[in-house]
Amino acid sequence: MAKNDDGSPVRFGIMGCAVIARKLAAAIAVAPSAALVAVASRSIDKAQQFAVRNNLSKEVKLYGSYEELLEDPSVDAVYLPLPTSLHVRWVTAAAEKGKHVLLEKPTALDAKMLDEMLHACEANRVQFMDASMWYHHPRTLRMKGFVSNREKFGEIKSIHSSSSFHGSPNFLKNDIRVKAELDGLGALGDTGWYCIGAILWAMDQKLPTTVRALPAAIKNDAGVILSCRGSMNWGEEGTVATFHCSFVAHATQDLVVCGSKATIHVEDFIIPFDDRRGVFRSTIGAEFLELHVGWSVKGEEVVVGNEMVQEGLMVEELSRLVKGVRDGGVEPDLKWGRTAMATQLVLDAVRVSIDGGYQPVHMYN
Amino acid sequence: MAKNDDGSPVRFGIMGCAVIARKLAAAIAVAPSAALVAVASRSIDKAQQFAVRNNLSKEVKLYGSYEELLEDPSVDAVYLPLPTSLHVRWVTAAAEKGKHVLLEKPTALDAKMLDEMLHACEANRVQFMDASMWYHHPRTLRMKGFVSNREKFGEIKSIHSSSSFHGSPNFLKNDIRVKAELDGLGALGDTGWYCIGAILWAMDQKLPTTVRALPAAIKNDAGVILSCRGSMNWGEEGTVATFHCSFVAHATQDLVVCGSKATIHVEDFIIPFDDRRGVFRSTIGAEFLELHVGWSVKGEEVVVGNEMVQEGLMVEELSRLVKGVRDGGVEPDLKWGRTAMATQLVLDAVRVSIDGGYQPVHMYN
Repeated sequence: MAKNDDGSPVRFGIMGCAVIARKLAAAIAVAPSAALVAVASRSIDKAQQFAVRNNLSKEVKLYGSYEELLEDPSVDAVYLPLPTSLHVRWVTAAAEKGKHVLLEKPTALDAKMLDEMLHACEANRVQFMDASMWYHHPRTLRMKGFVSNREKFGEIKSIHSSSSFHGSPNFLKNDIRVKAELDGLGALGDTGWYCIGAILWAMDQKLPTTVRALPAAIKNDAGVILSCRGSMNWGEEGTVATFHCSFVAHATQDLVVCGSKATIHVEDFIIPFDDRRGVFRSTIGAEFLELHVGWSVKGEEVVVGNEMVQEGLMVEELSRLVKGVRDGGVEPDLKWGRTAMATQLVLDAVRVSIDGGYQPVHMYN
Repeated sequence: MAKNDDGSPVRFGIMGCAVIARKLAAAIAVAPSAALVAVASRSIDKAQQFAVRNNLSKEVKLYGSYEELLEDPSVDAVYLPLPTSLHVRWVTAAAEKGKHVLLEKPTALDAKMLDEMLHACEANRVQFMDASMWYHHPRTLRMKGFVSNREKFGEIKSIHSSSSFHGSPNFLKNDIRVKAELDGLGALGDTGWYCIGAILWAMDQKLPTTVRALPAAIKNDAGVILSCRGSMNWGEEGTVATFHCSFVAHATQDLVVCGSKATIHVEDFIIPFDDRRGVFRSTIGAEFLELHVGWSVKGEEVVVGNEMVQEGLMVEELSRLVKGVRDGGVEPDLKWGRTAMATQLVLDAVRVSIDGGYQPVHMYN
């Protein structure tokens, strides 16, 4: 059963059969260090439908409740694509059963809830990671090397990010992401999670000094955010950033990081246009030609191939960490919990700012 | 001397020998309907140096004062690359002498001053245009057609624009754009003029309901803005926009307009990378593929060639309007004054917001 020599694979259970779970089932299938061993839904029928639809091996155990899956000693790690409002309950339960956790974003309705989950993971010595797959694409690592190179890139001056899609009438009426009782953060928690994450990624997870939402956020009748914007800054002369996230605008996934000496532009930072390669444009040391009739250099396309889809790379990275804990006596890596917490804290600040009429929210962390 | 059959060319005088005047001298040289007939500086020496450096014909008259140029009856129109603080004085003087006006941006230190200039032009029946050259590039017209197509583009949901360059130590110390007494608006008036202009261009010059600057603007010791940001919105559920302008960040000229159904991206909207063609990317009706492993469509590059540099096209457009007034008894076109006024009003609001600690500024126009 082992797909490589580096110990037996990490055995995953999927808790919840949301559409997005199909993507993770496929990712686990391609990740050499992972194996899918169980699927649970609230009914055995749904679990069976999921198994058929995804061509799962007969060896994958199917459960009609999440509790049963968590009792299964053959499960090392669980993936939770459940609605955000259920995260605390099920992450805590999983951690207490010693299961490592891959959690769909947004991680929580607020940072306090995430804190509870992270402490449950720590207390039970299980690895935590949220399912922000784009961090694991080799393009992301290449971009990070570029923006972190102070000599070539200079100081980071400004960042702008957007993430949007135009939800269908059915989506805007029925999707869990527009339901107050399920995913109350709406577009801020869904597409905004990536925008905020990308800004913090560029800033090495350093929290801004001030966050504010910008008018006018759009909410549905239940008060769920369908579109909003935020602004951040780091001190009086430091980096500035803005983002826009929406369920009612055409598809965008823009990230622009502008340093004092160079820039990167990417238009598909979350889901690359092509699943086998990622592209970004870097521009270094551009000046305007004499009489301003052109630029001294044009942006250059950097192409970064990926042998495995980014979700597979994410599962592989989590599996590597889980193996360290399971087989090597290593402590769980707190990095991914901290990354999620930084995003959650800024997200909370944006929400507080919206609720307070777009007032600035100062951060003290 | 006539370069085409459509009446004699419009005879331009240049008032001031700033570096940027070299670009306009070249533009007048390539515009079929224009001819450079006079150059004035504060000293005859400077005017002579300018003539030599730009290989001007011996027929071009050289003046050691602006007043002399304005007295010359052979001059139809003047181009003013003077510091902003001198605009009211010299535009008013030019208008009173019946000279049509091409004014370098920012047009004024505030909208009240611009209003004075526009009324002087109107009273004297002279055409006004500010020297925002990018409006005249055929790429700009093509993009406008695209974003204005409600069927294909949908409603405009968000706009983001940036314009920056990394000023040299010499620039940051000595350029007129960082001198409080000459161009007190600094980066907001210079690169920010284009950002605000681009946002309003997309919005058909409709003013936002609310404008606010975003922290933290960077100023030099004299209080001149070196970097700042602004946010705008149109009503409670309408378009939102942000911009970033700077003298201390790497070269950017980004414009992204996101509709409900399509998007345009351009990274060199003010000065195209190539002076013979402009490129933008349009993306229409993009959706994420099943399991979110790609996009249904990728952005498409639209290439728009230009036979004449955009400054030449601007001079040609102004000359066309001037001929209408001079030869055809047509009234001056108020469109360009209105365009400049919209930009100036928003620019003023951003400045007021910065001075008031980043408070919202509501617009009543």
